Amino acid sequence: MDLSIYLSKIKKIDSNAINEAMKRQDILTKPKGSLGRLEELSIKVSGITGDYKKPLLSRGMFLFAGDHLTVHSEGISSAPIDVTAQMVENFTQGGASVNVLCNRINARLQVIDMGVVKPYNHKSKVIDCFIKSGADNIKLGPAMSRVEALKSIESGIKCVLDFNEKFSLDIMAIGEMGIGNTTPASAIFSVLGKIPVEDITGPGAGLTQDKVNKKAEVIKKAIELNKPNFNDPIDVLSKVGGLEIGGMAGAIIGGAICGVPVLIDGFISTAAALIAIKIKPEVEDFIILSHISAEKGYCSILNEFKELPLIDLGLRLGEGSGALIAMELVLTSMDLINNISTFSAANVIDVKEYE
Amino acid sequence: MDLSIYLSKIKKIDSNAINEAMKRQDILTKPKGSLGRLEELSIKVSGITGDYKKPLLSRGMFLFAGDHLTVHSEGISSAPIDVTAQMVENFTQGGASVNVLCNRINARLQVIDMGVVKPYNHKSKVIDCFIKSGADNIKLGPAMSRVEALKSIESGIKCVLDFNEKFSLDIMAIGEMGIGNTTPASAIFSVLGKIPVEDITGPGAGLTQDKVNKKAEVIKKAIELNKPNFNDPIDVLSKVGGLEIGGMAGAIIGGAICGVPVLIDGFISTAAALIAIKIKPEVEDFIILSHISAEKGYCSILNEFKELPLIDLGLRLGEGSGALIAMELVLTSMDLINNISTFSAANVIDVKEYE
Repeated sequence: MDLSIYLSKIKKIDSNAINEAMKRQDILTKPKGSLGRLEELSIKVSGITGDYKKPLLSRGMFLFAGDHLTVHSEGISSAPIDVTAQMVENFTQGGASVNVLCNRINARLQVIDMGVVKPYNHKSKVIDCFIKSGADNIKLGPAMSRVEALKSIESGIKCVLDFNEKFSLDIMAIGEMGIGNTTPASAIFSVLGKIPVEDITGPGAGLTQDKVNKKAEVIKKAIELNKPNFNDPIDVLSKVGGLEIGGMAGAIIGGAICGVPVLIDGFISTAAALIAIKIKPEVEDFIILSHISAEKGYCSILNEFKELPLIDLGLRLGEGSGALIAMELVLTSMDLINNISTFSAANVIDVKEYE
Repeated sequence: MDLSIYLSKIKKIDSNAINEAMKRQDILTKPKGSLGRLEELSIKVSGITGDYKKPLLSRGMFLFAGDHLTVHSEGISSAPIDVTAQMVENFTQGGASVNVLCNRINARLQVIDMGVVKPYNHKSKVIDCFIKSGADNIKLGPAMSRVEALKSIESGIKCVLDFNEKFSLDIMAIGEMGIGNTTPASAIFSVLGKIPVEDITGPGAGLTQDKVNKKAEVIKKAIELNKPNFNDPIDVLSKVGGLEIGGMAGAIIGGAICGVPVLIDGFISTAAALIAIKIKPEVEDFIILSHISAEKGYCSILNEFKELPLIDLGLRLGEGSGALIAMELVLTSMDLINNISTFSAANVIDVKEYE
């Protein structure tokens, strides 16, 4: 299916449901507004799902994996390319942070191979959306062709729609695994957010300052060479992005098509969110930024978004870890709006009436 | 039992357990330090409990209720004094935010009446530590006698020790209900933190600016009249504090005696934490500040503490709500340290070895 057809299927936010949720918050036994962002969150989610009473039982965690030949060739990653495949295998065996966090909230983990270079076992537990063996070295040319970029986005959309078909998706999170993928994320932020490369390039999983400098040089050269068009997010994705980043951008669009809240993880996931929003601004109504990544420059990209992330715990793991922690907060906020007694039911004086 | 005997029973932090937890974090399949504050949290909790493997199954939520005749007489509260009793009844009937949040994490709610003025039903579901019918008007004299202040602290300690006896406490949170108790909390912060009254006096549950000014005037007069000794936290509690604040300070000390992590809630709970730490600085090793209260001036008191709160969600509800949300984060952090696979078990290259 053509991307534009998918985009035409994106749901509208339900303003009646938002009003109902706002009215409900004001009759619950607590001072008005005292649950702060948890109230706002419950109202936003109600607008997305159409009813604050809708249970969010079917929870999807979409984890896109892909490699980056740039960092492999240029020596600007703290880990070898093998680790992407090793971690994918770890996900299938339940051993990673994302597994622990999915278990806490009964989220179904979907691991999607968009372009992992090295072999791994337990392939049957991974969704095969393999496009090619890693995004190409962006210092030498585009990460992928435009056709491949579109394919990565459409694969992400399809993963979410398929899940929805099978399990009737209620809420979802996105995350990624790809050694060296802070490099394309920084490049995307620099181009789409018009941020100087130095201000948005950090140590990733643990580079020394020397290597961070080298990484910034590589990103600058890649942007100079490939000339990504900042008015065309798909061009940016294809020139300096990554296969798993395209997958995530698609999954976000898929979430908006299904009309479910989409929790965005950290640095790399937020780059995907920025691409998705630049493709279709209405998508932003469905996303919730989960946390302030500890990666350098993350805060400078928040100007591109209407809402701030929920938490700031110094996380910089990826894998959807921050998104799943924030999903617990979303579930908490919906528990609260549904289950706190009203002033009248609990025989508590409504302070607003007293004043 | 004399307070000093209780204080002599406070446990020591286990530095071996801290080292074990630190070592463990470094062999788990994630970049070193990438779980940020969740790693620090798991290490701190391990030091408190003595073993990162210790399950935190028995969870106590200690909610102390008490009234304040100051705000009742001076008209500086947005809600009538009746609401304290009404909310206590709401807690016994499962209708408040604290109930919803306790249910999420299977925490046992203990509602403790330290001095609620108005009658309420379902008294059998409330622990009776009633000292007197509300703290007295601090504009006219001390909130309570020194004997009553000590009794409030000892009651709080006993509540926790009794729970530990019955249910073998593993982790706890404190919270409060008391219409108008931001007034004594602001007074305590002003005296113990040496903060100008205007800088630490806010709208509480919803005062207009006129009434906030009046509230600051009342606090200033109370401090002038009662001359609380900032070197004597029990004097401060008795002169400008509250019965439920004393109860919470005691519960924190009780948690340190039991050797369990103690989650501190918002503005008023943090005032109790400050009293507890001023009584016995070692107590700080056991506490975790949960959230940045939206009440004015909260951040200025953080200088008094070694660690920052975990979350900032604009909460200003009380009832232990923020503490319970943060308890989910503590449980998450312990889930992660226990259940992420090690590099060797998962056959993932340890990046540190590669560099």
